[in-house]
Amino acid sequence: MDILNRIEQALSAIINLHDVPGAPPRLAAAVRHAVFPGGARIRPQLCLAVAMACGDDDPALADATACALELLHCASLVHDDLPCFDDAAVRRGRPSVQAAFGEPLAVLAGDALIVMAFQALGYAAGRSPQRLAPLLATVASATGMPAGIVAGQAWECEPRVALADYQRAKTGALFAAATAAGAQAAGAEAQAWRPLGERLGEAYQVADDIRDVLSEPDVLGKPVGQDAALGRPSAAHQLGLDGAIRHFDGLVAGAIAAVPECPGAPLLRALVRAESERLVPRAWCEDVARRVAA
Amino acid sequence: MDILNRIEQALSAIINLHDVPGAPPRLAAAVRHAVFPGGARIRPQLCLAVAMACGDDDPALADATACALELLHCASLVHDDLPCFDDAAVRRGRPSVQAAFGEPLAVLAGDALIVMAFQALGYAAGRSPQRLAPLLATVASATGMPAGIVAGQAWECEPRVALADYQRAKTGALFAAATAAGAQAAGAEAQAWRPLGERLGEAYQVADDIRDVLSEPDVLGKPVGQDAALGRPSAAHQLGLDGAIRHFDGLVAGAIAAVPECPGAPLLRALVRAESERLVPRAWCEDVARRVAA
Repeated sequence: MDILNRIEQALSAIINLHDVPGAPPRLAAAVRHAVFPGGARIRPQLCLAVAMACGDDDPALADATACALELLHCASLVHDDLPCFDDAAVRRGRPSVQAAFGEPLAVLAGDALIVMAFQALGYAAGRSPQRLAPLLATVASATGMPAGIVAGQAWECEPRVALADYQRAKTGALFAAATAAGAQAAGAEAQAWRPLGERLGEAYQVADDIRDVLSEPDVLGKPVGQDAALGRPSAAHQLGLDGAIRHFDGLVAGAIAAVPECPGAPLLRALVRAESERLVPRAWCEDVARRVAA
Repeated sequence: MDILNRIEQALSAIINLHDVPGAPPRLAAAVRHAVFPGGARIRPQLCLAVAMACGDDDPALADATACALELLHCASLVHDDLPCFDDAAVRRGRPSVQAAFGEPLAVLAGDALIVMAFQALGYAAGRSPQRLAPLLATVASATGMPAGIVAGQAWECEPRVALADYQRAKTGALFAAATAAGAQAAGAEAQAWRPLGERLGEAYQVADDIRDVLSEPDVLGKPVGQDAALGRPSAAHQLGLDGAIRHFDGLVAGAIAAVPECPGAPLLRALVRAESERLVPRAWCEDVARRVAA
């Protein structure tokens, strides 16, 4: 089974376990809407790719870890789209949860997804109970205070914020957790895998800034120019478009160099390269370079 | 150390672990505001009392479990007070988190508290790693879908709801988890302890309905008549005030009868009696009886 099929099946299984008779039907529908159909599933792909590179000796735990990261990512998107943040009507090219189900169910669907992420870890720990506490710590610290994705979003509510702190928490934390937890799920040491996730997370955020400036609404599936409109810190505004693209290329090269030597290294490097092309297509960069030179 | 001191110290310790340099200062302040000063801390008290009745052989894990339940309760209050639900300006006699910090930080503080609850469990599982997965399952299922407190709140967004389903999830779930998880934290069988929590949870919800109708704003610290104003299902409206009080008394008697025989049983029964008097003072009941007879 390829990695993406494995992720979709594991996500379906965990959602089906909670979307049962007795659940409030609209909440269950909102939770499902938040997770399916998904985006690129890059965090769980990264997590599983690292688990496989580390031997994948407990596939159920690796699947659960990948699911936990994706559920937390989906929860953050649902809450980010709330009227008090981005007030986004569109997500992944269709109505956001708050647009489709209303604000109250968007708050609660996000809450339920956060809880479900930790449940997924707990259910799957039967074979390797000693791995649960460290996994929980890695996944939770990428999510909460002081430096997880919730804290990242909270930096938007502070009068002063450093771009690096904001991006490290808002995006980088879950990427670094994806590689670290992927290793932990397979019983490997997390530390060697963290730099790969950190660099990819930074690259992903820079790519998002670039795409926010460059892309068309139908390409990204959300309104453009959000960062500027909301006064959010953005690499594309700090470095200029050309500088941001060079920064992105440097981060991708750094991520590729950070893949530890192991049997799975070629697969991981290929995943990073494919993802970087998906995020910032070479054709865009050449177009920008032409415009800068002109 | 008495139970309440133990709870406050454990809550302080877990908050201090996350409110560190590098955390967004306003988010950290909002999280602290949501937890201190607390309410009656009845869920963690119940949890610790059961752990003590079961031998309390791993006090750090029992403390963490009690904290997790209280953090989840605080998270639910913060989200319930949001403009899209109760729009409450006052909680525990002072500004609610959303009134003091704004809606965005109230959403994020609730999220951070949910995550912190699971982190607390993970940190404390070092001595008894095999207890972590079942504890996580108990605490999480009392919180999320299909029948935890998040689902309970979501029943308010459904066109049809049965009072019993709503209350079992909205309030009962966390009480039942308090007794079950208290036992699990001490290495005991959870099942025997669940009926005590279930009955107390039901009693607590009925008491809330009674208080909502009867009490003065300065007694409860929040505006009265909320249930009727928001069209929420309420025992006091379904059974009448007199019937609701008799229902409450029956539930308290049932809870006392459900305490399993053990060395800690007298302490637990005394806790239940004291809590029932705090919730629905005998003087109120006599006043209602007089008015019904008149």
